Amino acid sequence: MLTLALESSAKAASAAVFEDEKMLAFSIQNAGLTHSRTLLPMAEDMLKNLGKSPADIDRVAVSRGPGSFTGLRIGLAEAKGLGWALDKPLVGVSTLEAMAWGGPVLDGQMLCCAMDARRGQVYNALFTVEGGKPVRLTEDRAISIGELESELIARQEPWILLGDGAELCYSTLDRSQVTVFLAPEPLRVQSARGVGLAAMGKEAVPAGELMPQYLRMSQAERERLAKLEKE
Amino acid sequence: MLTLALESSAKAASAAVFEDEKMLAFSIQNAGLTHSRTLLPMAEDMLKNLGKSPADIDRVAVSRGPGSFTGLRIGLAEAKGLGWALDKPLVGVSTLEAMAWGGPVLDGQMLCCAMDARRGQVYNALFTVEGGKPVRLTEDRAISIGELESELIARQEPWILLGDGAELCYSTLDRSQVTVFLAPEPLRVQSARGVGLAAMGKEAVPAGELMPQYLRMSQAERERLAKLEKE
Repeated sequence: MLTLALESSAKAASAAVFEDEKMLAFSIQNAGLTHSRTLLPMAEDMLKNLGKSPADIDRVAVSRGPGSFTGLRIGLAEAKGLGWALDKPLVGVSTLEAMAWGGPVLDGQMLCCAMDARRGQVYNALFTVEGGKPVRLTEDRAISIGELESELIARQEPWILLGDGAELCYSTLDRSQVTVFLAPEPLRVQSARGVGLAAMGKEAVPAGELMPQYLRMSQAERERLAKLEKE
Repeated sequence: MLTLALESSAKAASAAVFEDEKMLAFSIQNAGLTHSRTLLPMAEDMLKNLGKSPADIDRVAVSRGPGSFTGLRIGLAEAKGLGWALDKPLVGVSTLEAMAWGGPVLDGQMLCCAMDARRGQVYNALFTVEGGKPVRLTEDRAISIGELESELIARQEPWILLGDGAELCYSTLDRSQVTVFLAPEPLRVQSARGVGLAAMGKEAVPAGELMPQYLRMSQAERERLAKLEKE
């Protein structure tokens, strides 16, 4: 089964092609160009260099959030476009779960996946590794770094920080209270490799049914709501 | 300074583009296709998607060995072709050193970089990490796994195994005598990311001056020598 995996929840965009669980190819771009310009050409070039065409894809896996609203919409729109045009199903994967699948894999390791959600918050979920695979300890949530710190301390483990919010956590958490490590760079930031791995064994859905998972309202929605409340 | 990095010393082929020390893009293919078909198109697509052309490259970094004779010749030939055509210098990097640069980066970690050299041997070099950067403990050499084991035991450290020979070492070394860990997959196998990082600060040379570092004679050379000795 050929899976095309797409990731565009943050600043970098990446694509990967898997034959079952084996990753055949992977590409990432982090030059600050818009994902709407880079993501599909990257996937197209990758398939072409593998001697494959879009019609060979059996399903498209994509990170469905949380993350940057614009980034997620580009990734989901492109996945849905491909799924609809090729009549192939999609697998939506939590961005935070994809980070955990792309991260370290030693049993017993504790993984803290985080994205900067602005306004003093992080999008976060905690995982541990069992049998080489991440196992969820919490749901995906938007919480303050203070709340996260209390939880990490309460669980009393050394934590490996993953995600594009890892550096923010590393510099903000009180490291005299909780032991944390930054994962090495290629494991740290969310990527299509993690999306493809997380999608294994997950059920695919028709293109029309896949919905983003924003966790919070967008700035435009918040402002509209505040304005309506005021009126 | 824009660096194009190429890696084709083993089964996977990869390319990366660096703006100084920042990696702008990275692609890897591991579908068993010949590097002569995949390596340059991958680099070309990557530059195109970055909105750059080959003429924007300031230098080409390439792994110069040890490794697969055919793989190295393809990588070096393509690097030399680019360097000559664009009149840009090349930086040759030890394959084993590139593995260390692409690997874990916590200070004090001990890195054992290995490729399967067949005939009971590995291409190997040992490194430690200081200030986030690998520091050499040995030269590149072709040694038996038994010799490697004695050396790892003598240094009495836990070792992180890197390179496409890491799994061979992991399954062959006597793990009751020496503690070893397999690095997580994206850090383990040599890649153009490690080549680009290892090339930073190294002097570039004109295309004509770069030579491969095979460490051993090829099978054809060994057979010819044996035949000559016999005659």
